[in-house]
Amino acid sequence: MKQVYLDNQSGTKLDTKVIDAMVPFFTEYYGNPQSIHSLGIISRKALEIARYQVSSLINASEEEIIFTSCGTESNNLAIKGIADTLKSNGKHIIVSSIEHISILNSVRKLKVEGFDISYLPVDNKGNIIEDELKKMLRKDTILVSIQYANPEIGTIQDIKKLVSIVKNSINVSDFIVFHSDAVSAFGIIPIDVEKLGVDILTFSSSVIHGPRGSAGLYVKKGIRISSQINGGGQENFKRSGTENLPSIVGFGKVCEIVKNEMSKNNEIICTLRNKLITELSQRLKYIYLNGACENRLPGNVNFSVEFVEGEALLLLLDNAGIMVSSGSACASKNLKSSYILSAIGVNTVLRQGSIIFTLSKFTTREEINYVLEKFSDIVSKLRNISSLYLDFIKTGRRIKV
Amino acid sequence: MKQVYLDNQSGTKLDTKVIDAMVPFFTEYYGNPQSIHSLGIISRKALEIARYQVSSLINASEEEIIFTSCGTESNNLAIKGIADTLKSNGKHIIVSSIEHISILNSVRKLKVEGFDISYLPVDNKGNIIEDELKKMLRKDTILVSIQYANPEIGTIQDIKKLVSIVKNSINVSDFIVFHSDAVSAFGIIPIDVEKLGVDILTFSSSVIHGPRGSAGLYVKKGIRISSQINGGGQENFKRSGTENLPSIVGFGKVCEIVKNEMSKNNEIICTLRNKLITELSQRLKYIYLNGACENRLPGNVNFSVEFVEGEALLLLLDNAGIMVSSGSACASKNLKSSYILSAIGVNTVLRQGSIIFTLSKFTTREEINYVLEKFSDIVSKLRNISSLYLDFIKTGRRIKV
Repeated sequence: MKQVYLDNQSGTKLDTKVIDAMVPFFTEYYGNPQSIHSLGIISRKALEIARYQVSSLINASEEEIIFTSCGTESNNLAIKGIADTLKSNGKHIIVSSIEHISILNSVRKLKVEGFDISYLPVDNKGNIIEDELKKMLRKDTILVSIQYANPEIGTIQDIKKLVSIVKNSINVSDFIVFHSDAVSAFGIIPIDVEKLGVDILTFSSSVIHGPRGSAGLYVKKGIRISSQINGGGQENFKRSGTENLPSIVGFGKVCEIVKNEMSKNNEIICTLRNKLITELSQRLKYIYLNGACENRLPGNVNFSVEFVEGEALLLLLDNAGIMVSSGSACASKNLKSSYILSAIGVNTVLRQGSIIFTLSKFTTREEINYVLEKFSDIVSKLRNISSLYLDFIKTGRRIKV
Repeated sequence: MKQVYLDNQSGTKLDTKVIDAMVPFFTEYYGNPQSIHSLGIISRKALEIARYQVSSLINASEEEIIFTSCGTESNNLAIKGIADTLKSNGKHIIVSSIEHISILNSVRKLKVEGFDISYLPVDNKGNIIEDELKKMLRKDTILVSIQYANPEIGTIQDIKKLVSIVKNSINVSDFIVFHSDAVSAFGIIPIDVEKLGVDILTFSSSVIHGPRGSAGLYVKKGIRISSQINGGGQENFKRSGTENLPSIVGFGKVCEIVKNEMSKNNEIICTLRNKLITELSQRLKYIYLNGACENRLPGNVNFSVEFVEGEALLLLLDNAGIMVSSGSACASKNLKSSYILSAIGVNTVLRQGSIIFTLSKFTTREEINYVLEKFSDIVSKLRNISSLYLDFIKTGRRIKV
């Protein structure tokens, strides 16, 4: 059966060039980068080459890169590490309401410890409401954390402008830190930390066809951050634990690859994404695009499909070999529908019928044509057994939410 | 040039059967275990198979296994997670003085937060002094953490007996937890958590020819531990972050391998280790074995070589293709000589001349013969340019320490 993988926000296929780069570090150069013998030296050099490859993708310097094990760990380190360092200067933290769950659950933990958390609202496209940000800033605000781009609805924030609002406010702590979780943007769209003026930035390997087990933080020179995992003092005492070298080498390699491929890939991915959005909208009634129109991640498509349950849709698509995500309650661990869609004002019913496609550089035109055909069929099939839909067709009435 | 790798405590060569198991999860089964489509289901099943493989190596059940990114992270989770959970019952923690740096630096952080830390002394072979443990236990003792085996001096503790001392004491908190960092023992010598009676146990993949990026904790049913990395609630809400599936699959595979191979491998490794110890002692004067004679890790050899600097020895051995570790100050990040050797009473001079060999299943008799020959030559060469040695030969006097 045909297999069309359009769930690249949840995991990506490793680039074969990346495996080729990694394998020697499993079997040949397996020394610990902290060892002082030859194999240790080879490992240490490889670690520093990878650090260069990662840093140069975002115009950072090598000393500003900390490797961690995943995006979630990086976000925990950013939030808790800054809270630890700056708590004597203030205990107010601002995060957007559409942050990744690792940010939201990190600040939730800090709240228990006495921090004051403000949640920044977004408009119906998922853009930060700048006036609200201005209003929230306080003399004891030590940290603002705003996601670079949302993996679910694709909306890209104007981080440069948001940084400038925060940094130019006279109404914040002198030590204010701006963090951006860029997991969904790093290696996908161009990022220049210097131009942005951001202090800390989270990135990860596994969403850009790099290996799992590698992610990290950019921490601008001069910003102090308290280590959350203590031990042997690796990563300049910011993240202890033996470095996961094969994975880090693969991460470095994939950064080198995306640096060269990014603009070419995005042209193709955007064309396919736009085709999917336009033609699905033409083929099907009562479906609504969620997220930004402009400033949207190249591979992201998010539709709410009325009169359809996201989970049923997802399973029938899977039967047809098409793999996607959903913001419906049944598709989530805690059986709650997407808080991201809720934050942009999508009602309960439409949240239940939401479906997320994430394209990648491996997505083909043929695959998109296949999806267009199957998707319409499956939605029609599901609607024809939906009493709500049949009732709506008969009476024109929708259920109240 | 011949290459003899005897630094397996710092890093190990991946078993090729392990890579074969991992590769499909890079390129074919790259779904997120949390996804509900086919690739997600395949990943979830693979995750649970690996969990079974890991758990069955130590006679635990699958629900008692939490995967993390490395031994250091596991130790941080064990120590801080239990401190978080039990702090209302007491704030006294006992750790041995020869714990891994990730344990020592975790309790150091807790001390700043108001916990009271006691450091358990060891005898001159590195064994816990049981009477000291009994004396240290208090009504507010919530956690005792004692390493299973020491990677530097090879000493294996009698964990079963130590657990029984703690658990049978009337002088501890009702909720007392016994943790053992078994990174150097797991997969190397047989461990049965049920027989031991231990509550939490740290283990890691990378010291047993498994991939980096995978490690974990055994947490006995009923023991509550507070998550240190917050987010999507993976690993039963104990460790959030997308699971590093290729690495976890490799870890599972290596557990299956060592389960079958362990006793056969250890017979060979012990024979080679004993040959190295015996023949080096015969060939060279003024060298002293550190650590236990009985109850020693199969692959561990630790000698203090008098009148020689560990770093010089290490570098000349490296020139001859022999890779080892040293407990000398120059070989360490913080330029301090081994606190492990210090704890067993080795003086400063002998700490400076310490050298650690760790053999593995890939070590051959031919390699050991090569080391025996080269090591004696190199030590003689270094001593012949050492004024301390020449002075000693002439006068019989050693420098004071």
